Amino acid sequence: MEMDTISAISTPMGEGAIGIVRISGDDAIQLADNLFKGKRPLAEAETHTINYGHIKDPDTGDIVEEVMVSVLKAPRTYTKENMVEINCHGGLTSVNRVLQLVLNEGARLAEPGEFTKRAFLNGRIDLSQAEGVIDLIRAKTDRAMNVAMNQVEGKLSQRIQKLRQALLETVAHVEVNIDYPEYDAEEMTLEILQEKGSFVKKEIDRLLQTAQQGKILREGLSTVIIGRPNVGKSSLLNSLVQENKAIVTDIPGTTRDVIEEYVNVRGVPLRLLDTAGIRETEDVVERLGVERSRKVINSAELVLLVLNNNEPLTEADEELFKLSEGHDVITIVNKTDLEEKINLNRVRKLAGNRPVVATSLLKDEGVDELEEAIRELFFEGDLETGDMSYVSNSRHIALLNQAKKTIDDALGAMEAGMPVDMVQIDITKAWELLGEVIGDSVSESLIDQLFSQFCLGK
Amino acid sequence: MEMDTISAISTPMGEGAIGIVRISGDDAIQLADNLFKGKRPLAEAETHTINYGHIKDPDTGDIVEEVMVSVLKAPRTYTKENMVEINCHGGLTSVNRVLQLVLNEGARLAEPGEFTKRAFLNGRIDLSQAEGVIDLIRAKTDRAMNVAMNQVEGKLSQRIQKLRQALLETVAHVEVNIDYPEYDAEEMTLEILQEKGSFVKKEIDRLLQTAQQGKILREGLSTVIIGRPNVGKSSLLNSLVQENKAIVTDIPGTTRDVIEEYVNVRGVPLRLLDTAGIRETEDVVERLGVERSRKVINSAELVLLVLNNNEPLTEADEELFKLSEGHDVITIVNKTDLEEKINLNRVRKLAGNRPVVATSLLKDEGVDELEEAIRELFFEGDLETGDMSYVSNSRHIALLNQAKKTIDDALGAMEAGMPVDMVQIDITKAWELLGEVIGDSVSESLIDQLFSQFCLGK
Repeated sequence: MEMDTISAISTPMGEGAIGIVRISGDDAIQLADNLFKGKRPLAEAETHTINYGHIKDPDTGDIVEEVMVSVLKAPRTYTKENMVEINCHGGLTSVNRVLQLVLNEGARLAEPGEFTKRAFLNGRIDLSQAEGVIDLIRAKTDRAMNVAMNQVEGKLSQRIQKLRQALLETVAHVEVNIDYPEYDAEEMTLEILQEKGSFVKKEIDRLLQTAQQGKILREGLSTVIIGRPNVGKSSLLNSLVQENKAIVTDIPGTTRDVIEEYVNVRGVPLRLLDTAGIRETEDVVERLGVERSRKVINSAELVLLVLNNNEPLTEADEELFKLSEGHDVITIVNKTDLEEKINLNRVRKLAGNRPVVATSLLKDEGVDELEEAIRELFFEGDLETGDMSYVSNSRHIALLNQAKKTIDDALGAMEAGMPVDMVQIDITKAWELLGEVIGDSVSESLIDQLFSQFCLGK
Repeated sequence: MEMDTISAISTPMGEGAIGIVRISGDDAIQLADNLFKGKRPLAEAETHTINYGHIKDPDTGDIVEEVMVSVLKAPRTYTKENMVEINCHGGLTSVNRVLQLVLNEGARLAEPGEFTKRAFLNGRIDLSQAEGVIDLIRAKTDRAMNVAMNQVEGKLSQRIQKLRQALLETVAHVEVNIDYPEYDAEEMTLEILQEKGSFVKKEIDRLLQTAQQGKILREGLSTVIIGRPNVGKSSLLNSLVQENKAIVTDIPGTTRDVIEEYVNVRGVPLRLLDTAGIRETEDVVERLGVERSRKVINSAELVLLVLNNNEPLTEADEELFKLSEGHDVITIVNKTDLEEKINLNRVRKLAGNRPVVATSLLKDEGVDELEEAIRELFFEGDLETGDMSYVSNSRHIALLNQAKKTIDDALGAMEAGMPVDMVQIDITKAWELLGEVIGDSVSESLIDQLFSQFCLGK
């Protein structure tokens, strides 16, 4: 495949200790050499070595930067092409200037995700592995990282390929039957079709069973805290944020501005919505009215409904129960340190079979129970398994569902006595759908769209 | 020197393609090896090599990340110690998790600037070189980068050392005279003192002459745009920003949020103050009154005073001239596309010997002249010199001024017929002051304070 030489800044924008300009393509090393002044030219460096030197501006002769240049020769590289990574001192001006010099030498500015796209186009990784790389970068919890890492490592691909292999064998078998009808293997063919089809369907079901959890791990669970004024919404928010340290802020010196209000409750990443609203004002319901509350609730996957143990239920409380019908709701009866004036039976009735937890956020009581209720609602059983080949990507989930339905159709057709070669069409279709998960026979525009979600320099 | 092993994230915080966890110290390689799973242990890797593999959590055995690990063995490293750089896939969770594992293995979280501090303490660079590293990271223009790079490369240090050598020789000569009076070299000693003293003083003067420009290059020139409503302040602001592309935003994909409103006018980095005020409302003067205007003007090094060519001068205009007395002011008579109703002679009189430029920002006329006026005001002659050993750091400037004064004192004392050994005290003092520039005999608290200005991981 003909590939030009591309370059981009691969470190996040901002002042940092190290900034990296990445180059990939046939000319990567020669091109960097034109700017490099070191003990020896980069062309003479061995692969996977780090070379100390300076970047000079070829026009002015100015020494622009003091650098460490990594030389990585094809094919043992991220893109399978020649690669160079120029490690600069890390200022914005510095990395931008070095990138500009590289572009002046004839490299093209890489599009977002183009390095990973090349890894895919050059056959080093398949599409689901590439998608795992985005998930790895975006992961908000350790567990989400593990899931993504497994995907990068090809665990999902292996399972998909096993299923495709089974389908392919079935198709081959049907082919034999069609081409050599004299063998009269129709009976056996149907039997095998049924057996293999059921096997694949069951395996797809097992994968899809991990989908809900996988999606939550990947995207976080959108969560709202609702309740009348002064029932303790702010306290609940603070308690969740403090007890579970907002993700990635547990290392000193990390900035918080860029980070959404995420908390990690026993492995469930909660994405807390509308927290500014809670922080700024206590009376979301009264000030914003029913319509707005309905909207907030509908945007969430988990509703934390807070009530005041020290007051009788009000109409507004009942309204909130009504608004959150059909959602995953955990009811929190707060202020158990004060006298019980609420009608707990009525609360339990309103909650139905959804969990009710009593807390005194003031005294830090009941928070454990609440966290456990959140975990149980979304993760059955224990999650501490090493082999986390969850399906977490909506694209994969949709394809798996389609593949499953197609196999269902095939099995149904067989039972209805349809000819084997008709059934074969569905089986082939399922094989293709599974192929799309790993990037077999996907359209160019889909590929472009997927990689455009990457950050620059990846 | 006894040094423990330190570690930090060396790339800016944020989602990026590559995140680096840096480790330095005797145990750096062994420590990384405990987490590394590759073709061979890092301990067996040669120095300056890049090693592909995985980071595993030693407690759970989980594969945490797919990494490229740079092994850099002492002494040819940034810190002169053993160093390891773990290149991760770049997400926030990912780099934080790898850092956490490194800390669990016994590394200590590095303080800001601690890697560079070690480079200094281990004698690889002197203090002015280390300070150049901060400047390099913070540089807002290419020219500022060149100045910083020269400092990192030790150009300033060399000049300082040359001066110290001259002073040292003088002191030695005086010592000889005191210790062996029988040589009766007093006459000659005075002569030499005078000659060397004058030489050093002249050299310091030459360095200090670069200080104003150096400081501007390093810190940017704080600039305000003032004027009555509707004279064209917003247009001027937009014109400056558009024509001179806000710095570091000329590469697609860079975020603007973190960046102050900097523009690069012919090599002069303007730091535009109060631009939000201009953008949000046109009537800074009328709304905020004289007191606030005075404050804004006093915070600036350059005042751009905008007048309307199409209106007679008002009292408010005259007031602005008065408020900006004693500042560097460029007066801009805007709207030359409309009829001239302003009294230009009066404007010139008010401006005194400070520049007046006529513009039609609407028609994009006069902007070149304005930019040239800005350049001329701050940079005499041509700046396109390769050898930019500017003094740009306030600490250095203060020390050079003190050293110069001390030498002046010495020369004065000599002329007043003071004994040579008294003069020697001043010369020694000047030698010490110059030494502080490059970090000779500076206090530990000063060193701590200087390095604390660095970013984490540097």
